[in-house]
This record gives sequence, C-alpha cells and structure tokens, in this order.
Amino acid sequence: MDDTGTPTESGSPLLQRILSLRSGTVWRSRNGQPTAKEVLRLCEALLSERGEVSGARVAGDLIAAYRAFDAASRDAFFDLLSNSFLPDPAEAAQAADAYRAAPSSDTLLRLQRAAEPPRHELFRRLNLAPGGTGALVEMRRHLLATLRDHPERAALDADFAHLLRSWFNGGFLTLQRIDWRTPASVLERLIRYEAVHQIQGWDDLHRRLEADRRCYAFFHPALPDEPLIFIEVALTERMSNNGRPLLDPRAPVLDPVRARCAVFYSITHCQDGLRGISFGSLLIKQVVEDLKRSFPRVRTFATLSPIPDFRKWLGTTAAAALPRGSGLAEFLARFDSRAVVLTDPVPAEVRSGLIQLCAYYLLHARQGHVPLDSVARFHLANGARLERLNWLADPSAVGIRRSFGIMANYLYRLDDLERNHESYARDHRVIASRDIERLARRRAG
Amino acid sequence: MDDTGTPTESGSPLLQRILSLRSGTVWRSRNGQPTAKEVLRLCEALLSERGEVSGARVAGDLIAAYRAFDAASRDAFFDLLSNSFLPDPAEAAQAADAYRAAPSSDTLLRLQRAAEPPRHELFRRLNLAPGGTGALVEMRRHLLATLRDHPERAALDADFAHLLRSWFNGGFLTLQRIDWRTPASVLERLIRYEAVHQIQGWDDLHRRLEADRRCYAFFHPALPDEPLIFIEVALTERMSNNGRPLLDPRAPVLDPVRARCAVFYSITHCQDGLRGISFGSLLIKQVVEDLKRSFPRVRTFATLSPIPDFRKWLGTTAAAALPRGSGLAEFLARFDSRAVVLTDPVPAEVRSGLIQLCAYYLLHARQGHVPLDSVARFHLANGARLERLNWLADPSAVGIRRSFGIMANYLYRLDDLERNHESYARDHRVIASRDIERLARRRAG
Amino acid sequence: MDDTGTPTESGSPLLQRILSLRSGTVWRSRNGQPTAKEVLRLCEALLSERGEVSGARVAGDLIAAYRAFDAASRDAFFDLLSNSFLPDPAEAAQAADAYRAAPSSDTLLRLQRAAEPPRHELFRRLNLAPGGTGALVEMRRHLLATLRDHPERAALDADFAHLLRSWFNGGFLTLQRIDWRTPASVLERLIRYEAVHQIQGWDDLHRRLEADRRCYAFFHPALPDEPLIFIEVALTERMSNNGRPLLDPRAPVLDPVRARCAVFYSITHCQDGLRGISFGSLLIKQVVEDLKRSFPRVRTFATLSPIPDFRKWLGTTAAAALPRGSGLAEFLARFDSRAVVLTDPVPAEVRSGLIQLCAYYLLHARQGHVPLDSVARFHLANGARLERLNWLADPSAVGIRRSFGIMANYLYRLDDLERNHESYARDHRVIASRDIERLARRRAG
Amino acid sequence: MDDTGTPTESGSPLLQRILSLRSGTVWRSRNGQPTAKEVLRLCEALLSERGEVSGARVAGDLIAAYRAFDAASRDAFFDLLSNSFLPDPAEAAQAADAYRAAPSSDTLLRLQRAAEPPRHELFRRLNLAPGGTGALVEMRRHLLATLRDHPERAALDADFAHLLRSWFNGGFLTLQRIDWRTPASVLERLIRYEAVHQIQGWDDLHRRLEADRRCYAFFHPALPDEPLIFIEVALTERMSNNGRPLLDPRAPVLDPVRARCAVFYSITHCQDGLRGISFGSLLIKQVVEDLKRSFPRVRTFATLSPIPDFRKWLGTTAAAALPRGSGLAEFLARFDSRAVVLTDPVPAEVRSGLIQLCAYYLLHARQGHVPLDSVARFHLANGARLERLNWLADPSAVGIRRSFGIMANYLYRLDDLERNHESYARDHRVIASRDIERLARRRAG
Repeated sequence: MDDTGTPTESGSPLLQRILSLRSGTVWRSRNGQPTAKEVLRLCEALLSERGEVSGARVAGDLIAAYRAFDAASRDAFFDLLSNSFLPDPAEAAQAADAYRAAPSSDTLLRLQRAAEPPRHELFRRLNLAPGGTGALVEMRRHLLATLRDHPERAALDADFAHLLRSWFNGGFLTLQRIDWRTPASVLERLIRYEAVHQIQGWDDLHRRLEADRRCYAFFHPALPDEPLIFIEVALTERMSNNGRPLLDPRAPVLDPVRARCAVFYSITHCQDGLRGISFGSLLIKQVVEDLKRSFPRVRTFATLSPIPDFRKWLGTTAAAALPRGSGLAEFLARFDSRAVVLTDPVPAEVRSGLIQLCAYYLLHARQGHVPLDSVARFHLANGARLERLNWLADPSAVGIRRSFGIMANYLYRLDDLERNHESYARDHRVIASRDIERLARRRAG
Repeated sequence: MDDTGTPTESGSPLLQRILSLRSGTVWRSRNGQPTAKEVLRLCEALLSERGEVSGARVAGDLIAAYRAFDAASRDAFFDLLSNSFLPDPAEAAQAADAYRAAPSSDTLLRLQRAAEPPRHELFRRLNLAPGGTGALVEMRRHLLATLRDHPERAALDADFAHLLRSWFNGGFLTLQRIDWRTPASVLERLIRYEAVHQIQGWDDLHRRLEADRRCYAFFHPALPDEPLIFIEVALTERMSNNGRPLLDPRAPVLDPVRARCAVFYSITHCQDGLRGISFGSLLIKQVVEDLKRSFPRVRTFATLSPIPDFRKWLGTTAAAALPRGSGLAEFLARFDSRAVVLTDPVPAEVRSGLIQLCAYYLLHARQGHVPLDSVARFHLANGARLERLNWLADPSAVGIRRSFGIMANYLYRLDDLERNHESYARDHRVIASRDIERLARRRAG
Repeated sequence: MDDTGTPTESGSPLLQRILSLRSGTVWRSRNGQPTAKEVLRLCEALLSERGEVSGARVAGDLIAAYRAFDAASRDAFFDLLSNSFLPDPAEAAQAADAYRAAPSSDTLLRLQRAAEPPRHELFRRLNLAPGGTGALVEMRRHLLATLRDHPERAALDADFAHLLRSWFNGGFLTLQRIDWRTPASVLERLIRYEAVHQIQGWDDLHRRLEADRRCYAFFHPALPDEPLIFIEVALTERMSNNGRPLLDPRAPVLDPVRARCAVFYSITHCQDGLRGISFGSLLIKQVVEDLKRSFPRVRTFATLSPIPDFRKWLGTTAAAALPRGSGLAEFLARFDSRAVVLTDPVPAEVRSGLIQLCAYYLLHARQGHVPLDSVARFHLANGARLERLNWLADPSAVGIRRSFGIMANYLYRLDDLERNHESYARDHRVIASRDIERLARRRAG
Repeated sequence: MDDTGTPTESGSPLLQRILSLRSGTVWRSRNGQPTAKEVLRLCEALLSERGEVSGARVAGDLIAAYRAFDAASRDAFFDLLSNSFLPDPAEAAQAADAYRAAPSSDTLLRLQRAAEPPRHELFRRLNLAPGGTGALVEMRRHLLATLRDHPERAALDADFAHLLRSWFNGGFLTLQRIDWRTPASVLERLIRYEAVHQIQGWDDLHRRLEADRRCYAFFHPALPDEPLIFIEVALTERMSNNGRPLLDPRAPVLDPVRARCAVFYSITHCQDGLRGISFGSLLIKQVVEDLKRSFPRVRTFATLSPIPDFRKWLGTTAAAALPRGSGLAEFLARFDSRAVVLTDPVPAEVRSGLIQLCAYYLLHARQGHVPLDSVARFHLANGARLERLNWLADPSAVGIRRSFGIMANYLYRLDDLERNHESYARDHRVIASRDIERLARRRAG
C-alpha cells in the first residue's frame, strides 16, 4: 500500500478533521482516494468516544470511504482489519484460567469480554450509518471472494458471519409474495439473481408470476428492496415430471382452482455476502403453510430438482461395475464423445439402466456420511423424501451434461419433516419412496 | 422445585412427545403446569438437530410453557438456566492458551467457539417463534427483577443484554411520528409508559399531540406495536421556563408557524427488558434533524428537565457551607418540616441562594468523575449544554421535593454536540452557559 | 343581511382581487367577515373561465369564506343560493317541446343541458378544493337543519343529494375493519357518533373491539378519517336474547373459535350531511360475507334490534282490543304511571300477552303498505327475516319506555335475502319465522 | 341480431334465473353467448327492486355478459341502449311547462326528475359490481369507436361522459410519483400508453425514472392500477432546446441538486374511455408545486413540445406569401419531394425563414378564435406562455414531417397562469415572449 502522493481531496469535513486531529503525519492517498490505513484510523475513531455520540456520521464516512476503494485498497484494508481489533492474548488466557479455576458469573463475564474481538463492536457501530447493514453484507461479499487466496482471513470472515447470522435470524425475516404488482426494483433483482433457470427478460418473468404460479421471497427490514432468497412455485394438476412446460413463457395459464399440486421448480439464494446462512428450509416450510391456506385442495408439495453431480459420479465408477449387457458402457462412450443426442430415442435398456444407477447414486453415493449430491443433501436435511425420478425432464445442455436430463421430485409432507430430518441427521438415512428403493436395488443386483 | 404430582396435562403434542421421548422418567408438574426442568429439557431439544428443522415450533412451545410459569417456576428456571449451556472451562482454557501461544486465525476461531456460551444460540433459536423477540425482552425483564436477590445471575443477564444490544442496534430502529392518527394500541402504551409527566387519560394525550406538539418514538421491526422510547416536544415561541403550560390540557394551541423553539419536555424508555441499552441520544439527534426540516424557523432546541437529586445533595452539605446571612439554613429547616409552601412568595435572597447552589451542584457535584445528577449526566454525555435554571418551573409535589421546583434547560446544538461530548467524555467538563457559570461562582465565592 | 360597515379584512389576496375586480361597489361586511353576497360572487367566479384554470384556489377561498360564516350569514347564503344558478325556464320549456316534437339524440342533449341547474357544476368545482368533498357534506348538513323552516329550499337540497348520492355510490366505498389498531382519530369518531348504544369512553370502546367482537365501517376515499356508517358485531355461541352482556365492558371475552353466531347489535349512520343515502344494506351484506370467510363455523347471522314504536302504537289501540282477562289493561295503566318496574317479576299472562301483541304489531301494523316500525322496515327491506322476540332484552330506560324492553332478532340468510326482499317489496309481506307468526295469530285470536 | 340458436349455456345461476323468470319466451343466444337483448333485460332487472337488494350481483352478471360480447353483439347492445331508458317526452314537456309557468322548488324538482334519463341510474348501479367503474370506462371506449358511424348515439355518449366527468372530478384524483419502485403492473401500462415519445422497453423506461427525471400520474381510487394521465419531466441545467438527450437511454444522469430547470417533455392521456375529460392542466399545476417543494433551486418550468400542424398549415399558404428571395419556396418543393435531408446543413435564410413562419403560425393562424395548433391550444389555455422555438429539436421522421423538427418551449409561471389564461380565454390573445413576437413580426414584414 502506497501512502505517498497527493493529499486527499475527498472525504467529508469530519473525515478531514479526524484524520488531521488524530495523526502527526499528513495523510496521503493515491489518486485522491482514501487509503486503507486512513480508513482503519476511522475505524478507531468509530470505536472511541467520538463514535458514541457521532456514530452514524463517522460510520457513514467510513462506508463512503470504503466504497471509493479500488481492489488493491480493499485488499490492503482486509489485511489490516484481519490483524486489528483482536482479543488480547494475555488477557484472554488469564480470564480463561480464572474461569477454569473457579467457574462463576464473574469469571464467565470476564472471559467473554476478553474473548470477544473488538471487531464485533466495530461492525455493530458501522450498522448505524444509513445503509449500514447493506454495506456490511457487501464487505463480506468482497471478503469471501479473497478467502481462497487468503485463508488467514478466515477468522475475520467468521466475525462477519457470526454477526450477520445473528442479525438475519429467521425471526426477523418477512415472507413476501412476489407478483406483478411488486415494485420493478425488486423484480429486476429476481431477473438478475435467478440461478437455477435463468429468466429471459420481463416477459418471461411476467409468465412466472401469472395466476397459476406463486413466487415468495424473504426480506430483512434493513434491506427492504433486496430479496434474500426466493422460490418459484407452479400450481399444477399433478406432480410435474418435466421442466419444459414450467419454463415456457407461452404455456397456457391453469385456472388455479384446478390445481392439486404445488411444484417448487427453483430456489435461489440472492446474497453472496450471506453465504453459509441458510434460509431455504424455513422458506419452504412457510411457503407450504401459506399455500395450504390459500389452496386447501392442493395436497402435494414437491420439487422438480436437478441432480447436479450424477454424471460426474458415474465417471468415477469403473465400467466393470456397470450392469452387463445393458449397452450402457457403449452408450456412455458415445455420450461423452457427443455422438449421441438424448432427444433421439434411447434404447429402453439404456434408459432404465441410467434411471436405476441414478436411484442408486442418490441413495448410496456418499461424501463422508452425507449424500454426494448437493441438492439431495439440502432437501433431505429439510426432511423431504426423494419421491420419483423423471427421464429427460431437463433437456437443456446443462441438464443433459449433469444428469442425462434426469430430474428428481422431492416430496414435502409437513407432518413427516421432523421425523425424516431426525432419521437423516442421526442415522444418515436417505428417506425415499418404495419405487426409488426398488430401482436402486435392481441396479445393485 | 417439586417434580412430583400429576402428569402434565398441558402443552402441545410436540411438547408431550419430546418430554416422553427424551426422558426415562415420567415428567410431572405441579398443577398441571410445566416445571422449570421440563422447560430446560425443551431448551436442549431446541439446541439439538430437532431444533434445526422444527425450530419455530419447539421455540413456540417453549415460550408458551414459560408464559404459563408462576413466579416460583420462573425463579427455578432462571436458576437452572444460570448454570446451563455454559462454556466448558477446560476447553476454554486450552483454547486461550493456544491463542496466547500462537495468535492466528485458527486459534482465534477456536477461542471464540470455546468462549461463547451455548446460551447465545439458544436465545437465537427462541427468536424463531412468532413473537419470539418480544418474549426474550420479557424474560430479561423478569430476570432483571431478580438480580438484586440473585447477583449470581449477572452473567445470564449479560448474555441477554449482549444479544438484545446487538439486535436493537440503532441501525435497525425506525423513527416514527406519533400523532392522533396513530393506532390506539400504540397510544395506549404511551399513556401507560410515560414516566416523567404522567398522562391523565386520552384527553390529556390528545392535547399533547396537537398542532403545536410533536411526539416521536423508536420502533423495532420485530415489535411493531411497542414503542421502545418516546419523546414529547412542544413548539413554543421562546425557550420554556415553566412546565405548567406544557402540561395543561386546556392550554391554547399555538400556530406552529410562529414557533421558534422546540422544547423536549419528556423522554421515556418504555421497555424494562432493554435496560442499559440507550436509545435517547440517537433519538434526540434524529428528532432535531426532522424538526429542522419541518420547521426551518425553529432554531432553538432545548429540554425542560428535572434536577432529581439536588435536594438530596443539599442535605449532605454542612449547614456551615451555606452562604451566611442568606437565611437559607432557616429556610431549609422550615422546608423540611413542611412549614413552607413554595408557591408563597420566597425571600429573594433565599431564591437566589438556591439557584446559585443548584448551579454549583450541577457543575461541581460529582460521583467519581461524572456529575452526581443523573439527568445532567444523560444530556451532557449527549453533548448538550446546560443553559438556564428556572425557578418554580415544576410546582408538582415531586418537583418541589426533589429540587424546590427548579428545572434546567439543556441546549442541543447539532454543530456543537460532538465537541461538547468529547470535552465531557475526556476531561469530564460540564459544558454550561456563562450565566450558569457565573451563578456557580457566586455561590462558591 | 347587512352589507354596510367596515371593509372586509379577511380573505386571501385572490378573494380580495376577485371581489374588487368584479364589482363597481366596495364590498363590505359585518365584523370583517365575508357576507353571503360576496360569497355568491365567488361562486360566479368559480363558474367563469377563471374557475377553469384556478378552480382549486377559488374553491378553497370560497370554502374558507363559508366556514367563517355565522348562522345568519349562512342562512342568507342558502337563500341566495336557492334562487341562483337555476335552469332558464324559457329555454327549458323550448328544449322540452323540441324533444316532445321529435325525440332524438340532438333534442335529448338539448333538453338535458337546459334542465340541469348550473348549481351542479358549481358543486363539482367546489370539490376541487382540498377538503372540498367534506365541505359539501357539511354544507348539506347545515342546509338540512333549515329545511323544516324553509321548505322552499327542497330543490337546493335535492341538488346536493343528487350529487352526493352519485359520488358516494357503493362502488366507491371501502369496507374497513375497525379494531384497537385503528387510528385514534377514527375511534374517537365512533365514540362520538354511536347512536344505538352509547359508548362510555375508551375502555368501553376497547371492550367492543376485543377478539370476540368485530366492527366494520364504510369509508369514502375523499374522507379517509370519516366513517360513513359502522356496525358492531358480537361473536357468540348462540343467538343473543339479551343486550346486557353485549354492552358490559367487563364481560369475559369468548374465544372466537367457539363462536357459532354473529350478532349485529348496533348500526350507526355517521354523516348527517348524507341523510337519505343508505349504506346499511350493502354494509350488512359485505360484513356477512367477510365473517363467513373468517369464521366458517359461524352459520347464524342475526341482529338484536330495538322495536322503537311498539309502546306508542299500543297506546293508540283501544283497550277493548286487548286480550281480555290477561290483566294487560291494568298493567299498562300502572306502567304508564310508572308504578311498575319491569325488572320485578311480571305476571306470566302479561308477559305473554305483550309478546303476542308485539308479534302482531310487527307483522300487521302498517303505515300505508309498509310496517309501522322503522327498524323493521330497514331489515325487512334488506331481505332479513323476523326471527324471534326476546323479553326484557333491553332493560335501559329508553328500551323499557319504547317496547317494555322487548328486542327482536332479524335473521340474515344470504341465500334468502333476494327472495325475501322481492316478496316484501312487491307484496309487502313481512317475512317472519313460524314462531312469530304463531304468536301473532294467538293474539289475533 | 340473431336470437335463434341454442339456449345459453353461460351465465351465472342468477342470470339464468332472471332471464327465465322475467320472460315468457326462451332466451337464446348465438354460440352460447348472451345476446344484446338478454343483457338489456338484465339492465331492467338492475333498475327494478331486485337491483336494490342485489345490485352488486346483478351488475356483476351484466358486466360479465357484456365482456363476453363479440363486436356484433356490442353494436346491437349500443343500438338498444341508445333507444332505452330515456326521459318520457310528454312528461318532460309538461314538467318544463309547469316550471316556466311558475318556477319554484316543486316545479324545478319535477323538471329535473322528468329530464334525467333513467340510464343515469342504470350506470350508477352498474358501478356496484366489483370492477364496475373500470367496466363503464371500457364501455364508453367501445362506444366512442362507433360514434363516427353512429352519430345518433351522441346522447348515449353524453350520458356516459356526464357521469364519468362527475366521478373523475379532480378532487377525487390522487397525484402519485412514478419511479422504479412503482409496481410493474403500473409501469407496464406506461410503456403501453406513452403517446408522445414511445418507450422502447424496460431499459428505456428505467432511464426515464432515474434521479434526474420525475414522472407523475393521476389515479382514481376505483382504478388503483390504471394511470389516467402521466407526465414525464427532465431536471436539467437549462431549458432544453433539443429532445434527443432527453430520450437517449444512455444519456448520463445529472445530479439533481444541479438542476435549475424542469422540462415537461411528454404528457399522455391513458384512458380513451375518458376522452373529453381533461386532467392535463390540473396535473401540470400540481406537479410544478411538488417540484418546487422538492427542488427549491429549480425556477424554470417549461415544456419541450411538438408543433403538430405547422407543415400542414404552411402547405395551405400561397407560395407568393412566402418571403421573397429566401429560397423557401424552392426548399419546400425539394422537402416535399424528399430531396432534402434536414440533418444536412440548411441555408441560414431558409432556417430563419422557417422559424419566423413558425412564430407567425403559432401567434396568428386560427381556427375560429383559437389557435390552429392543438398543442398550443392546450398550453395557452392552461395559462402558459410561448417562450422559444428550437430548430431541429425533434429529428424523428414524424417531427420532421410535421414541423421541420422545430419544437416549442411553453413556460409555466404559477403566478402568471391565471392572468394569462384569462387574457387568452376572453380576448383570444396568444401570450408569447418578446423574441417570438419579434420573429413573427419579421415574417409579417
């Protein structure tokens, strides 16, 4: 970080005053932008008495300065921050000793004070600025992007994550229905964020908000325009075995009174800065409850989900392990050389072979104790049941590449979620329908 | 705590199930109500895997059980909770040693995990229940009421306070104007909570919300009907030297365009469960800014404040220290024997003697480094200036008893707040007008 | 009206300018207030070109001037207005002749233009002022109060009524639930307006808004704080036969899930200025529909209604017509001399005699074709059925005096309303339960 | 209209019942759709007693039936309606005679009752249906489209217009700011309706709602999603002389604190069914007031307006009338043969000749007493002043064709509007700047 150059021109009078008051040297910055060190000095001011009475203003200055950073300054700032506002090692150890020697209210209090990094209070004071919460989420997003190259920043990230997890507690979130009367500023974000099935502009979005669809999002009061997570639901006559009609902007609109099934066909976390803080399970449960109230005749709640890692796993399986005589080995070879087009007829044995292998994969392929497939992990941990596999339900290039276009239905039965979840969490059991279990056994045989 | 008796009849099926599943013994309760131990067991369930998927339901059961407690059960519950979900002393000490030996991201992470009481996570999960935030504030209110008799619960209280301070961060509060169009459910609470000048029913309240008054409150999104703190403001032609016209329900209404001064005549913290979390400074600053926008011709922002501890302090001062020949000693003797009625004429020397003593008291009477007077401490720490003393401004029985009816104006100048605050915080200087300083010197002379 | 005196001091510059521009004489007024003639001149300005571009300002001036009127000025103003802005008799007659001679689009258009009083356009332009709609409603309220003494103002009143009926069309009204979260400014009006069972302050009102009660009002978008009509409903386990529990502020609150019946115990028109424009029928129907959605187990919708004119009618009935041997004649004599207290036991024959007479009265006492009883007329015209009579259901002094405390239940069955209404409207049939018909026959026998 | 065919299958049970009850014949319809006659019968039911109690339902049935009409049925319906529910000629004439003979409150009342077509009450009852107001606006839109071929429907249209003008009175409209947080359902309509400068999709719209733009619309409470009229404003540093930067989606965004001028560059009436009911004048005035409050430093409020009829008028002027030696005649000939491209340099004499002619046109070309140019008529009647002409300000094909790309600034000064309007309305004076007047004189010379 270069601290030479021209004196800073930017910054509010307060910023100027603080910098000049608190330092014997002249603060300088490259290109008239604040340097990381200057901003760290502002952090100190924010934690001082000054921060007590002028917290909102100092915090606002600090965030404005941060936002003017280029990538190099940001990196320098994270380096400094990573080594600042830490617990004092000696004091922490003494407090812990005292607690071990005589656990009591007093020694516990001392331990907690000694072990909490002052960074926590810094972040809490930053939140006083207008837009402070959003700025903290943004800072963490930036920080996360550097973690691979800077594993030593893990504790700094943990401080951010600890605070944000507490603030974005499910009890503070509001479930809002998204429809065509929602502000355009929010809808625009859905178009930008949708991760599972890209939204092709406003017409596509409009179709996904018609009478036979529902879309819900969680919002936090401090980020009123920013969906944290959203889910897209199709009301259908029966459990979907095919993603195309759900994604076709010209598909006819079903009269929702005829719906008997709600298909969750897309769920998207929007805020990278909140990574690791899961809202999905809570969202699905609240959505199921809301749909039950609105549509008493809808009894089936299920996903139509991708199986992202099936093909990759299959590639790791020795060809010898494939069922003999099924022609599967040959098919896979041609598939990988792109000589096969799945929309062409596929021999029945190949097809049933793949489905059986897929069932086996979802039930038995593991990463440690838990399923290898990330989508399966999510729904099973929520207490859902793996219900059905659907051939060629996702004919997109990505869908073909990942799982030969096979998609899974996971079934959400409110009454069973808790039992299923516990069975999964304690015994790592994959709860699945009998059909799926039979398919998996056949392959195994 | 008596755990014998008839089996519990109350509680949701979930409660029943958890209790029976998780325990070898039959859970019992007095009078069919849940016992503290049973509820502690629910806390364990909430922290288990079950809590992950059914957090909202378990938390709801727990809160319902807590609310059914009688005082004895609540006491027993606090005892149990005070000794549960604590950091492991050995692990904390080892983690602290490791951090001292080699401070790093890894050892810091380990230390923080080891030092955070699992109670924190318990409280966070309780928040998932509908109304959870309010229930936690209520629990702390109950707990605080027991602290005097149970100082050993201080660490438990600190855990509550730490969490609530983080959640009720100023960045999450919304400033709302209170007027006659505010829901009755909120207005009713103002009547109930007002601590400084009691509100005598709906007509009195209505007067306090007329065109020449303003009332503002902070709200938290999770407690939409519950004001956290509110402030009452009178728009006046000049800085008030008398509380009576401000409190008279039949006082004529001033056309607010003629106002040049805003007098803060009452500020009330509403939530005992949030004790120690101060919203006052932030509230006053935001209110001053809002009033400036609405009334550009209002230039003076001042309080009309009680001086709660003046008489008490005077009683501790040796009679010999009183100015000789002023007749003050005799006056005080008659005052204390209730032989004097302040609304009668008071000899000029007595009156000026008391005013001078009051100025001296506010400037120089200390408790350690800070002023003895609690109201002075609050406004001075906010950066306000002690501006003027007003004879017989509060002729109520309480006002007479506490300070011979004298009230103080503290002046809020936004541009000076920060400098004043710092001067006060660093050097313990009481910022006061020249008049006040002169009065204090005269007495001292 | 005296037009001499000092020149007007009041009025906006515009008012001054218009008055001075448009008149050769100097406008004067008593006591500095605008005179009726001056205001009429403003009306002319409002109907001129000036009104086209500055309608809102001129209308605002006019309304301000009107509001400054004393009673005498108001009276003079109505006199002038009553004779101004009328259709031209000659033109009207010629247009009507042309229409009779050759009914066509052209002649019809001419007739309508000739027959519409320019007052209509005047009122419509007045509506441009902020608060204009409310001011017009207020004007009509004042006017109505003078009609008895000034029957010649009937056409002026008809013009007001015609316009307001059109503007307060049911399609523009919004049904709003009133509860304890409703703004105090609205609740205060309920207390002030309640006509059937006076509300004894805020505590009484609060009880009427508890969980086992519902209160609904119609609002018009131009009068957002002003309820037009409101209805109070009690959710009960069975059809009420007694008003006291409904009106007791300390009555225990019923868990609404146990409710099977909704009792409409009070309905109040709030705006005198909208007299003759009925909202009651529409309100009841919409309320029944809303309650059905909220409480599917509530099946019975009934009123508990006064019978305001029973005693009066009975007084007109020859004593000879009373059932012999029932002791009724003697009872009535003692009742009228206040020698009887109804809360004392009443001989069974007297009681059953009165009930039978009351049934007869409601079924057969007529004013022309329609029932004599005004409350009966309202509910029967709505299509309700007279269901039951309840002895001593209203023990208030008024209730005793009007109907010996007897109250009626009228039953609202949505499916029958239309048929009942038509039967009533065409054949003047009073739809009543078999019990009521039997009671009436007994007496008749 | 063909009334034979299969019996109607459609319609609610009520519709069926009414039709069968009220008619001796079997009602039939083509293609199972209701016929115009059947719907007229529903109109009769709506005006009967049945309408009094079940107005909302009958009106809803009627509107549903109307919406199922094909074009032929609609036409037949208008024919029937045009000849139905009319005043009785004999009664109207007698009432008018009585009023002429003795004008009084009584005779006036009789005249008004006799002259008002019962259609008015029919329309008012239709309004009781959910969505009734919108349906009436839609009916009139359909009707207007037929007026050219059916001039005899003018009186029917006048009835619609009379009612809608009364209901859409300016006092009932709400001014709402439109921005990117407005519901997409409303924004979509702006894209669809914009008449002056077409909006090229969502990105274009987004640019028009940035920080240096304002968009406002009037709404009526009964049509909450439907803008009635909207205006687009650009905040600029000086009065725009060119439309291109205002319409360029990639134009840089001006910091609005630097704005000194507000340019109204587009104003669009959205509802064909409200034709002839002008909201523009009121909208501009309210928008100017709102902008003044928000941006005290914005002092200039002006339009950038097309001059739609300049070229057409010029074509009607004899070539001999053109200034000699200016080369204008030759230029016009080449212009009309499309041999000239205006973005090429144009000889200075031609350019100044055209500008002078345009000034002359706007000041002196008349249609009767009022200016020939429709846009000029609108702004001058509002009291605006013709301020400046701008060469090639609208280089679009339409702009070139209509006025050689010349556009006008009309200046709105609130203080002058009334005087200007009156001068225009009484003396037909075109209020213009000295520059414009000089230009016009030069040409005339």
